[in-house]
Amino acid sequence: MTSPARGRRPGSPDTRAAILDAARALFASGGLSGTSVRAVAAKAGVDPALVHHYFGSKDDLFVAALQLPFDFREVIVPVLAEGPDGAAERLLPVFLSIWDDPDLQTPLLALARSLTDPSSKELMRDGFLKVVIGPIGVALGIDEPERRMPLVASQMMGLIFMRYLLQVEPIASMPSAELVATYAPTIQRYLTGPLPPAGLDE
Amino acid sequence: MTSPARGRRPGSPDTRAAILDAARALFASGGLSGTSVRAVAAKAGVDPALVHHYFGSKDDLFVAALQLPFDFREVIVPVLAEGPDGAAERLLPVFLSIWDDPDLQTPLLALARSLTDPSSKELMRDGFLKVVIGPIGVALGIDEPERRMPLVASQMMGLIFMRYLLQVEPIASMPSAELVATYAPTIQRYLTGPLPPAGLDE
Repeated sequence: MTSPARGRRPGSPDTRAAILDAARALFASGGLSGTSVRAVAAKAGVDPALVHHYFGSKDDLFVAALQLPFDFREVIVPVLAEGPDGAAERLLPVFLSIWDDPDLQTPLLALARSLTDPSSKELMRDGFLKVVIGPIGVALGIDEPERRMPLVASQMMGLIFMRYLLQVEPIASMPSAELVATYAPTIQRYLTGPLPPAGLDE
Repeated sequence: MTSPARGRRPGSPDTRAAILDAARALFASGGLSGTSVRAVAAKAGVDPALVHHYFGSKDDLFVAALQLPFDFREVIVPVLAEGPDGAAERLLPVFLSIWDDPDLQTPLLALARSLTDPSSKELMRDGFLKVVIGPIGVALGIDEPERRMPLVASQMMGLIFMRYLLQVEPIASMPSAELVATYAPTIQRYLTGPLPPAGLDE
């Protein structure tokens, strides 16, 4: 049974937008684990079944709420299929071609800027890494993905800040091929290379 | 000749604060190169000589305007003295001990959060990298410091975001020794290791 709020018809574009608005607000305050599909449905004034109908699982809803201009998980499928060897050299060009696309860059930059909002800690920690970044490591079949993927993210995030947000030279103007050759050894070591013993403390 | 504004006596703490306020406002809008000591003095209502008296050179004034709780350039002197070999393993512990200090972490986090402000592009690009980060590379005596230090900054910045701002595990709780052993090979390669030909474009 649907219970449309403020006269919205179930299934209308309004309903979809209301669900997304509710999801963004709740994910921002409660993170992924603190937000239920039921709570999103209640806030949007719709039946939980409608949320699943439009967005699939809670993880899918989270990815939709990130408002990425595409589903990063799909773009990355060809990279994942070939396994961990040389993955950095395949991953970086895909990543750069997305960020270098003028149409995608504006919404991505807005997302990157929001990283310093207080709500981002929950969203990134509990959501983006678990739902988007983490599964890449699992799908690649690397060892210790929960340890290695945050290292990968730490370099990718710094590269994004320097190249796109702060536009620091020479990184801002570097051709894609030079960036790939510069950063691939770092990313590949984080993915599959030797790391110190976990918990090393002198 | 001094021309104190609003009745401030030259040399009073008020004068110093007024100069800093003026410097911060002008550096934020015009960057380092677009801001003269004369303009800062005019905005603060004091003689340019007073600016030099309190803060030294324009670069020194810029560092003061960053409101770091210390002068990074001084902290880093012992690291620089030993040259580029193994510099990453000496640099990282200094860097982490500063960021892990609870008294320093709050002002540093405020600075990191401000990186997504529109004014930060100028400040970082034209100021922080030129005045603080760049000279470290020059003082270390590495080749191509203007190319290599931004690479170093790209990894350091991502590490700061993951560990301190977003507090992503396991990076957030990693012992310093494990972080040094994890990131030193990356930083050392950026400082002194092989890089692709500059401008490589397929």
